[in-house]
Amino acid sequence: MSDDQTTISRAAATALGEEVMRLAGFAPDHARAITASVVRAQGDECHSHGLYRLLSCAELAEKGKVDPEATPLIDDRAPAIVKVDACRGVSLTAFAAGLPLLVEKAKTAGLAALAINNCYHFSALWPEIEAITDQGLVALAMTVSHAWVAPAGGAEPVFGTNPLAFGWPRPGKNPFVFDFATSAIARGDLELHRRSDTPLPEGVAVDAAGNPTTDPLEAVNGAMLTFGGHKGSALSTMIELLAGPLIGDMTSAQSLAHDDGAGVIPMHGELILALDPASFLGGAISADTSGAEALLTAITRSGARLPSSRRYAARRRNADRDMPVRRAVLADIEALAERLRQPQ
Amino acid sequence: MSDDQTTISRAAATALGEEVMRLAGFAPDHARAITASVVRAQGDECHSHGLYRLLSCAELAEKGKVDPEATPLIDDRAPAIVKVDACRGVSLTAFAAGLPLLVEKAKTAGLAALAINNCYHFSALWPEIEAITDQGLVALAMTVSHAWVAPAGGAEPVFGTNPLAFGWPRPGKNPFVFDFATSAIARGDLELHRRSDTPLPEGVAVDAAGNPTTDPLEAVNGAMLTFGGHKGSALSTMIELLAGPLIGDMTSAQSLAHDDGAGVIPMHGELILALDPASFLGGAISADTSGAEALLTAITRSGARLPSSRRYAARRRNADRDMPVRRAVLADIEALAERLRQPQ
Repeated sequence: MSDDQTTISRAAATALGEEVMRLAGFAPDHARAITASVVRAQGDECHSHGLYRLLSCAELAEKGKVDPEATPLIDDRAPAIVKVDACRGVSLTAFAAGLPLLVEKAKTAGLAALAINNCYHFSALWPEIEAITDQGLVALAMTVSHAWVAPAGGAEPVFGTNPLAFGWPRPGKNPFVFDFATSAIARGDLELHRRSDTPLPEGVAVDAAGNPTTDPLEAVNGAMLTFGGHKGSALSTMIELLAGPLIGDMTSAQSLAHDDGAGVIPMHGELILALDPASFLGGAISADTSGAEALLTAITRSGARLPSSRRYAARRRNADRDMPVRRAVLADIEALAERLRQPQ
Repeated sequence: MSDDQTTISRAAATALGEEVMRLAGFAPDHARAITASVVRAQGDECHSHGLYRLLSCAELAEKGKVDPEATPLIDDRAPAIVKVDACRGVSLTAFAAGLPLLVEKAKTAGLAALAINNCYHFSALWPEIEAITDQGLVALAMTVSHAWVAPAGGAEPVFGTNPLAFGWPRPGKNPFVFDFATSAIARGDLELHRRSDTPLPEGVAVDAAGNPTTDPLEAVNGAMLTFGGHKGSALSTMIELLAGPLIGDMTSAQSLAHDDGAGVIPMHGELILALDPASFLGGAISADTSGAEALLTAITRSGARLPSSRRYAARRRNADRDMPVRRAVLADIEALAERLRQPQ
């Protein structure tokens, strides 16, 4: 462990997180859901979605953007659609509210969609994906964000970083899960380059005139690019359409306009699909499993690594021990707690 | 028009195509479906899926692989799933057989899946996508192919070229449609480089040891790569799982093994999803349309081109005139017709 790292137990992290979220104004169920999400990510050593997110959630409440006591409204829209209005709350409580009906509909109809509207979304998509694969279902999830990313061949930001995540259940094993931004670089990484004034990799950003740039300030004033050129750009358009207009929610451009300079976590919608292998296959499930396992074995045998394997390794490593965390992050959270504990 | 191009009317192309397919042994409905597909692609100047495919379809029949008289079997599997067993016929007749039930289920349940099994698939995915957007539905389609593509970081071919296609209906306009291979280069392009012994672009292939190569022969003995590095590779894995094991069909490796050196069009499955905006939105459809249109306008205003725009321009250009076609392709088809017309 490096000098800037320390460790914290799950119990201590949970107690601290719940206290800080309660002090920031979140209702108990929201405080518990946010804390469980960031503690879980910290245990998987996903630092970008770990404990430090407590700071941005507190900011979201202090700026009066999120409704920290919102009660999600469930709308049983169609035989294969459940919609949940998060009512300006965090996505996590809305997802928890909609999950049982999504699972029931997927197992009855064969596949189903959960559309979450009007949610603040700060978490990774893989915890939602794993909640669905835990039920033996295949999962696909996507959200928009804020318009920071230009389409291939364009000069102006139109798309969000638009993550796409997928999960395939593997009986007795960790599921096959990927969860990636369709932008060529994470927004947080661009910000780190800007602060340290270090050049960006080639091919991840354009300046305001649409010319390739490795200058982080030019990129902030211009736009990030998608991964994979025009194909990644097409995929990001699909995510805008499915997680935005299809479900009656905002595109990344609309979400950025709604933020109105506050610079907080984006509010928008999320689309999640669940597909039931048993419904597709009937009695042929064991044959299916062997085909999928042969594929995943061939990938690792070819020398490649399955996505999420680093995360699963961290989960195993930290299962029976305290979780690593950056000292600076923990100090910031403790300072925030100290401030919030003072009488107003 | 260049010297190696000529033109042919839709009527003449259709008559020639149906005659050749009938002579090759296809039943009338198969011959009509194949011909309609290649004539439509030729009219959109999609030469890779145009008239020249008549040659590979005839080869498929002559090698005894396809069942040229197969009757697709429809299985109303679940409230949101229709499966169609193509029974070793071409995908086109199976798709036509399953489409009405897919549309009905999507409009009733909110979304639905059409899984086609045991089909020979030589056509692009966009005609199927457009058949669904014509019904006011959003569409997503994918297939595997033959294992020619290595995962990012791997040295052995595991994936097919695995196309992914998406469509969004736009009232009064051509739909937003993309249809791309998840391989970094088309198999046909690799073949052209091999025949002409010209170097490949950087980053599209590896040799048998997994090292980057621009030598087309090394690439044929090694593997192609996916677009977009580990993200494209993850996406290709998803397509293998969804269009293969989920629907009880073959992965690209299994399909290549099944081909057993015949070198013909791959047989495998296909997964198509249809989502109904009216079911998701209820009374809010006009608001949805404006959000989507604002997005698509922003993409073109930023200087980027929408996918399929070249194809739609060709369609407009050729709507009231004969279609361009390469002389050599037409000569090959006419020579095939001449040969097949001879008594055996």
